[in-house]
Amino acid sequence: MTRVLKSYLSGTFVAGTGRAAKLYDPARGTVVAETSTEGLDIAGALDYARDVGGPALRELTFAQRGELLSAMASALHEYRDELLDLARLNGGNTRGDAKFDIDGCTGTLAFYGKLGGTLGDRTFFVDGESEQLARNPRYIGQHIRVPRHGVAVHINAFNFPGWGFGEKAAVALLAGMPVLCKPGTSTSLVTARMFEILAAADVLPKGAVSLLCGSAGSLLDHLGPQDAVAFTGSSGTGAMIRGRANLLAAGVPVNVEADSLNSAVLGPDVDDESETFDMFVRETARDMWQKAGQKCTAIRRIYVPRESLDDVREALIGEIQRNLVGDPGLKQVRVGPVATAQQHRDVKEGIQTLAKEGRFVYGDGGPGTLEGEGLENGYFVGPTLLEVDGPGPGAVHDLEVFGPVQTLIPYDGTAAEAIPSVARGKGSLVSSVYTDDKNFARDMILGLAPYNGRLHLGGRKVADHSPGPGTVLPQMVHGGPGRAGGGEELGGVRGLHFYMQRTAVQGLKPLIERIAGV
Amino acid sequence: MTRVLKSYLSGTFVAGTGRAAKLYDPARGTVVAETSTEGLDIAGALDYARDVGGPALRELTFAQRGELLSAMASALHEYRDELLDLARLNGGNTRGDAKFDIDGCTGTLAFYGKLGGTLGDRTFFVDGESEQLARNPRYIGQHIRVPRHGVAVHINAFNFPGWGFGEKAAVALLAGMPVLCKPGTSTSLVTARMFEILAAADVLPKGAVSLLCGSAGSLLDHLGPQDAVAFTGSSGTGAMIRGRANLLAAGVPVNVEADSLNSAVLGPDVDDESETFDMFVRETARDMWQKAGQKCTAIRRIYVPRESLDDVREALIGEIQRNLVGDPGLKQVRVGPVATAQQHRDVKEGIQTLAKEGRFVYGDGGPGTLEGEGLENGYFVGPTLLEVDGPGPGAVHDLEVFGPVQTLIPYDGTAAEAIPSVARGKGSLVSSVYTDDKNFARDMILGLAPYNGRLHLGGRKVADHSPGPGTVLPQMVHGGPGRAGGGEELGGVRGLHFYMQRTAVQGLKPLIERIAGV
Repeated sequence: MTRVLKSYLSGTFVAGTGRAAKLYDPARGTVVAETSTEGLDIAGALDYARDVGGPALRELTFAQRGELLSAMASALHEYRDELLDLARLNGGNTRGDAKFDIDGCTGTLAFYGKLGGTLGDRTFFVDGESEQLARNPRYIGQHIRVPRHGVAVHINAFNFPGWGFGEKAAVALLAGMPVLCKPGTSTSLVTARMFEILAAADVLPKGAVSLLCGSAGSLLDHLGPQDAVAFTGSSGTGAMIRGRANLLAAGVPVNVEADSLNSAVLGPDVDDESETFDMFVRETARDMWQKAGQKCTAIRRIYVPRESLDDVREALIGEIQRNLVGDPGLKQVRVGPVATAQQHRDVKEGIQTLAKEGRFVYGDGGPGTLEGEGLENGYFVGPTLLEVDGPGPGAVHDLEVFGPVQTLIPYDGTAAEAIPSVARGKGSLVSSVYTDDKNFARDMILGLAPYNGRLHLGGRKVADHSPGPGTVLPQMVHGGPGRAGGGEELGGVRGLHFYMQRTAVQGLKPLIERIAGV
Repeated sequence: MTRVLKSYLSGTFVAGTGRAAKLYDPARGTVVAETSTEGLDIAGALDYARDVGGPALRELTFAQRGELLSAMASALHEYRDELLDLARLNGGNTRGDAKFDIDGCTGTLAFYGKLGGTLGDRTFFVDGESEQLARNPRYIGQHIRVPRHGVAVHINAFNFPGWGFGEKAAVALLAGMPVLCKPGTSTSLVTARMFEILAAADVLPKGAVSLLCGSAGSLLDHLGPQDAVAFTGSSGTGAMIRGRANLLAAGVPVNVEADSLNSAVLGPDVDDESETFDMFVRETARDMWQKAGQKCTAIRRIYVPRESLDDVREALIGEIQRNLVGDPGLKQVRVGPVATAQQHRDVKEGIQTLAKEGRFVYGDGGPGTLEGEGLENGYFVGPTLLEVDGPGPGAVHDLEVFGPVQTLIPYDGTAAEAIPSVARGKGSLVSSVYTDDKNFARDMILGLAPYNGRLHLGGRKVADHSPGPGTVLPQMVHGGPGRAGGGEELGGVRGLHFYMQRTAVQGLKPLIERIAGV
């Protein structure tokens, strides 16, 4: 019998009626679960979150909210093995990929749990120092930040059903806002199970978290001026959500974290015998195999000085060949399938579009040789490396192919040529620079900063410590300008600000200080 | 001969061709100038700002950019009398109203000029402390904020042609972004003259500021991912700009500061013999007469405990009667005309809509008795005070009538009744609370904070120091949630962040510190 996923609304698990969406095992193309949101009382669930969850969270101090997050992390961690298994079953994740998602979720919850402890016994923030606003020093202004009184609606992407839920929920809950999570339907098995675990553990106040598992239905129609939306996914869908008339009319803040064309740039100083070269190759190749290239932070454009191109090409091909493709349940497999049949079609089509302006260096968009049995109907794309002639305009800067696909781009080894070419991506989540030349590092970092949410600087002395550009750490802001959506998530306490209203309070100094608690 | 206003694009004053928009003296309905943007090379002007103005500004330190702002303030202040006169001629401003706009402009420029000095010899910001990101303490992350590489497009409202230009330009220029200012056409005489003064004074680098004086034409069509838009005006137009497909697709940040239904709440403790009562009446009445009620921060909804209603009504009527309406050039006149024929129609229509759910306490939407000669064709609306029965739902919370119009709302004197009623405005720029009761003050401030960008706390001890809620001080954030647009301007250094990209930089500690300059 097919497993039927339930939503968690108004404090109850409920299943929708009517035609259900099917969830697949992407390695085999078989149905593993189904879910529907038809007939569910979404408006009622939002009210429940606002009226029951919101007040309960706002009463708590940051430290107490942090304890909730720590308890969530512990509850989920107890079921780690089961969750890893579900990530394989419904996401096509290898064990390593699944850990990246599941441990990323619990790790981020735990990080914000600890952060809450450092924010202490307050229920809202004081923002900056007070300002004297009149000749008389007793008339002052003080900014505060208070939790918004609505619900934080989180629309997540299919590639991280665990982390996507956890990283957004951690930040909103710590800020004091209840959360309604709408995972990507196709891989929502993990998220649905997480909600069962959390409900059974009974670690959260009523109404603090809700789950809408399946089609969003009328979700966005019911939002008002105190709500907030955080979306992760394609820039097209992000723009559509942002452009919705009712959200614009009500001034609902929408944070968009969109896939983008991230770059890695090899410096002209790096020779192929160096640790920096190895680091560059290792981290670039990782973004090919990890999650089968389905990371919004994955390197798509690989900039290489022309004179190093042969060395890099050879080294990357060597790495690709070592990473076997196939059944994600097999230990020796590094590259699983992409997540859905639709992704499978899109990635293959995208590869052909890219190939029109370049050439295949490795792979051709086909599945290649697969490890394992019964994979004939799986959504496999073999790692595919392309190469173009130079850093000029082209599809490589515009078309994100969300799979194990990267393109080599030769350049002249100067920052002056690399920076405007990276900028052709119109805004990225992250770019990386690999160099041991301090001046090149400086020119590149400051030149690329306006076009990127994050910059990763590789070099000899950090070769053994770096998690690579694809790993999103909760301490650092995640998001990017332009095409990447212009949003910001995480970044420690910075992420909380999206869920809070900054208000300037003017009046008598001792009274304001008493109210602000300073 | 009618004065023809020019735009200032690509470093040159240029006049448009074709049909020009007419600018009027709103006290007399006579044409005082005309302007057109037809045929102007807007795309070229934006490129000039990006390619010439941007690099010049980014090279400067904050202190040097601050010096530019101080020089702008001085240059404009030299022509203060002429500018005050133009504000009367084209804006219908009394001398007091004109000072509010013109001195507000130079004062804000001067404030940010000084602030630049305190930010020192840096060209970009370091944001927060560095974070250790691996076991090895040498692998760190550091956030920086760098100026965006595009142009800051400022679309201003008709009510503050001086301040609107100055307050937005000060912040963007200090952040390191070139500015293109699009004033409200109907009152752009002041802004156009300011640009002539600034160009003659030659205090800014080429391309740092541009003026598009008249219809916006294709302005928004040419914007890309490094640009930014700050808009002040109606929430409807704000939503339209935000919802533009090309801005959404490129992820252009849009800051909206929209008119809203601001409130003043009298506490139950305040008796009519007290200084707090007088302050409440004085500040509420000021928002009726100042700028003929055409301030986005003006109090529209006046909450009064039922038992104080008669006292307040009487006191407000007394204030209104003292404030003569008529020719803004006459010394004894306090209330000038509204700015345009369209405003005139809208305000009169809006008053009738409000009156359907309430009753007139003073005035009826007609001009009343006017001081002065030749005002038959002027756009005069006499101060109009309405009253409704209670704090429940109604047009008073939804319809902003942008003129000398306010409504009395009796309530039971509890925060529990006042807060949800104020919140019916769906988000405001500012609300005020007048009380000497510490607990009421606290309950109101914390209860209203999520619904307001700014809160003004009046009371006995600040009665003589407060500038009132309608005055926007550069130290404090200006903007509000929901219907007020969800934006933030000013607020000291906070305002600069909109014009900058926050970028997380990860790598080797000494190298990152060298690049960040810490």
